[in-house]
Amino acid sequence: MKIVVIGATGVIGKAVADNLAARHEVVRASRKGEVQVDLEDTGSLGRLFQKVKDVDAVVSAAGSAAFKPLQQLTDEDFALSLRSKLMGQVNLVRIAAQHVRDGGSITLTGGVLAHEPMPGASAISMVNAALEGFVMGAAIELQRGVRVNLVSPPWIAETLRALGMDPKGGIPAVACARAYAAAVEGRDTGKTIEARKSVVSP
Amino acid sequence: MKIVVIGATGVIGKAVADNLAARHEVVRASRKGEVQVDLEDTGSLGRLFQKVKDVDAVVSAAGSAAFKPLQQLTDEDFALSLRSKLMGQVNLVRIAAQHVRDGGSITLTGGVLAHEPMPGASAISMVNAALEGFVMGAAIELQRGVRVNLVSPPWIAETLRALGMDPKGGIPAVACARAYAAAVEGRDTGKTIEARKSVVSP
Repeated sequence: MKIVVIGATGVIGKAVADNLAARHEVVRASRKGEVQVDLEDTGSLGRLFQKVKDVDAVVSAAGSAAFKPLQQLTDEDFALSLRSKLMGQVNLVRIAAQHVRDGGSITLTGGVLAHEPMPGASAISMVNAALEGFVMGAAIELQRGVRVNLVSPPWIAETLRALGMDPKGGIPAVACARAYAAAVEGRDTGKTIEARKSVVSP
Repeated sequence: MKIVVIGATGVIGKAVADNLAARHEVVRASRKGEVQVDLEDTGSLGRLFQKVKDVDAVVSAAGSAAFKPLQQLTDEDFALSLRSKLMGQVNLVRIAAQHVRDGGSITLTGGVLAHEPMPGASAISMVNAALEGFVMGAAIELQRGVRVNLVSPPWIAETLRALGMDPKGGIPAVACARAYAAAVEGRDTGKTIEARKSVVSP
């Protein structure tokens, strides 16, 4: 397959691209680099598919949302969260659905905060849950056998380590990447795939 | 209790106001009428609590979202859905949380489309799911014992009848109103309350 990974320079995106590159042709896209795309810029999404043709699958591991105590979240914090992680990925589905090959797939990134509250995470919980609802709803309307799924990662060990926290509270990026590979290479659609289940005990 | 019902002229809002008025002081607010408020106008939410003081509970049965096939949904359809039903109610929580009495409550309206896909409903599924995630996340951060919950209504019989469809596919508004009363008068917080469970067999 020919697979575009958006956010390929991030901790998760790089692991997903590396995993898929072992079996597929992978195009690594990000805000900077050879193939440029910015989820918040709908025009750049359209240009991506003018530049990269005959795509079988698109994976998004991009988009940001505000982490801040509820009473400190500003209107702009909510707007950013909706514009970037939510609508950036929703718009990717709207555009990619018209460009991927018949039977192709689109895989987005949500997160376990959709169902597990945490102080400071109300905007992220909102956005992650919204993505689950959208993917479920959009799946039954996509044409030409195109599939759409959402991977829901927990904390990633490498991210926790970078934040000076105990990496044991997360799963390794390589384990998380297996959930994306399952979404791309499997037959599911409309599903939220818990990345924690991709961790195989040693 | 002194309870403000926003959207009190709608099918659900009127039934909720009527139910609560049997046991409480109810202030009926809507875009037109004696007490005016528009969920899309954050300023009007602030003015509501300048005008109506000492509120114990706020119920929202207002906000709209676009129902249209995925490929026909425009950027503005998504923007309206986010601005009205989602952020209108999120902003209500942000503002009401500072004004309701200690131990007060805020009850929002989502819907079963959050978990039950239907052609044309992807934007609504997105918004309803987002509200579930937000309410779950916001609940653990609210101060002074303030609670927040979401009622998730199915189709309402009266609405179906007005659309020329079989009302048997829905529940009566009076049954739906009992779910809101349970949210206001109970002790739950952060919960999504399925209104279908409020239907008692005859």
